[in-house]
Amino acid sequence: MSPRVSNTYKDEKRKKILEAAKQVFRRKGYDLASMDEIVAEVKMSKGGVYHYFSGKEDIFEAILRERAENFSFPFQEGTSIWKTILHVLSGIVEELKHTRESFAPVIFEYFMRSYRDSSRERILLDQYNQGLLVWMSAIEKGVSFGEFKPKLPIETIAKTIISFIDGIYCDALQLGHSHLDIDEQMKAIVFFLTSVLEVETV
Amino acid sequence: MSPRVSNTYKDEKRKKILEAAKQVFRRKGYDLASMDEIVAEVKMSKGGVYHYFSGKEDIFEAILRERAENFSFPFQEGTSIWKTILHVLSGIVEELKHTRESFAPVIFEYFMRSYRDSSRERILLDQYNQGLLVWMSAIEKGVSFGEFKPKLPIETIAKTIISFIDGIYCDALQLGHSHLDIDEQMKAIVFFLTSVLEVETV
Repeated sequence: MSPRVSNTYKDEKRKKILEAAKQVFRRKGYDLASMDEIVAEVKMSKGGVYHYFSGKEDIFEAILRERAENFSFPFQEGTSIWKTILHVLSGIVEELKHTRESFAPVIFEYFMRSYRDSSRERILLDQYNQGLLVWMSAIEKGVSFGEFKPKLPIETIAKTIISFIDGIYCDALQLGHSHLDIDEQMKAIVFFLTSVLEVETV
Repeated sequence: MSPRVSNTYKDEKRKKILEAAKQVFRRKGYDLASMDEIVAEVKMSKGGVYHYFSGKEDIFEAILRERAENFSFPFQEGTSIWKTILHVLSGIVEELKHTRESFAPVIFEYFMRSYRDSSRERILLDQYNQGLLVWMSAIEKGVSFGEFKPKLPIETIAKTIISFIDGIYCDALQLGHSHLDIDEQMKAIVFFLTSVLEVETV
């Protein structure tokens, strides 16, 4: 086998394990999920799974990394940065409406412990900073294209967006999204961004 | 003993139990705290404590009710509603800076399960709605005094404030407040409120 084929094969196996693990985590939550169950779900031998991952925590961290890497803004020529931001926000709204059925509860369960577990805290901080950079560079792009004139530091605006979204996630998870008027709240964050960025809508 | 003295006595005993329980919950978290430990902390007999509360959940719910009842706006004649709101927000900022040492982690731990526990969900919903009413009536008061001209529905604005604060709580708990620039983010929420309420600052 050429290394290339071999790598594709490995990637596919890894992906298969991650997908199966996501099912198990979604079903059982983080604490109650077991490697045995993940192995059963993926339909591989135990040794096969352990060849790729050292355990549950390792698998979970790989899922988190995959999610973080997939979070980006679909910038396109001819589409304004502002429209792209609105598009990303509406995608988040759709996810928020399915918070409880999504992967979010598992992530919250995992990180709820981070204040008593410094390795989880470090992972979360990496994730937070990665998300922060994505938001900040989107805003900076808008500034350089003359679309935005931020009235507060860009970092503050980006952190505010993240906290706001985390807050709705948290409330949606704990209360159920039907009590939250997510669409209405999203209008509020759009209102905030329109004023704080002085959006030039073309 | 007159009923009056008796009630004061009972109130004091109840209060003593709640204070001791808070210490235990803060130290151990919700799941790991036990009635035995609460009994030991309060220095009463087991039967004495069970005379007032049926168990850990009952005590915890009483603590939550006490907190909800204590959340109000200190309106004063001669002080604008806007100033009162700023005062309440800066109190929240101070609390946020001590999230991990505060009671917030225990509350989050308790409610993290609410999406799989309908009785906790109901309690949380009561708390959420109570907080919502307090914020809404503060904004309505500002409107009736001619201080605010809301550009979005008052309920939406109130829900947005709550989600935003919950988000910072959540992030502060999981990440540690030092990564968040809480003061800066609070400026962002004040910016949001100033524009969405069209605050008339006198």
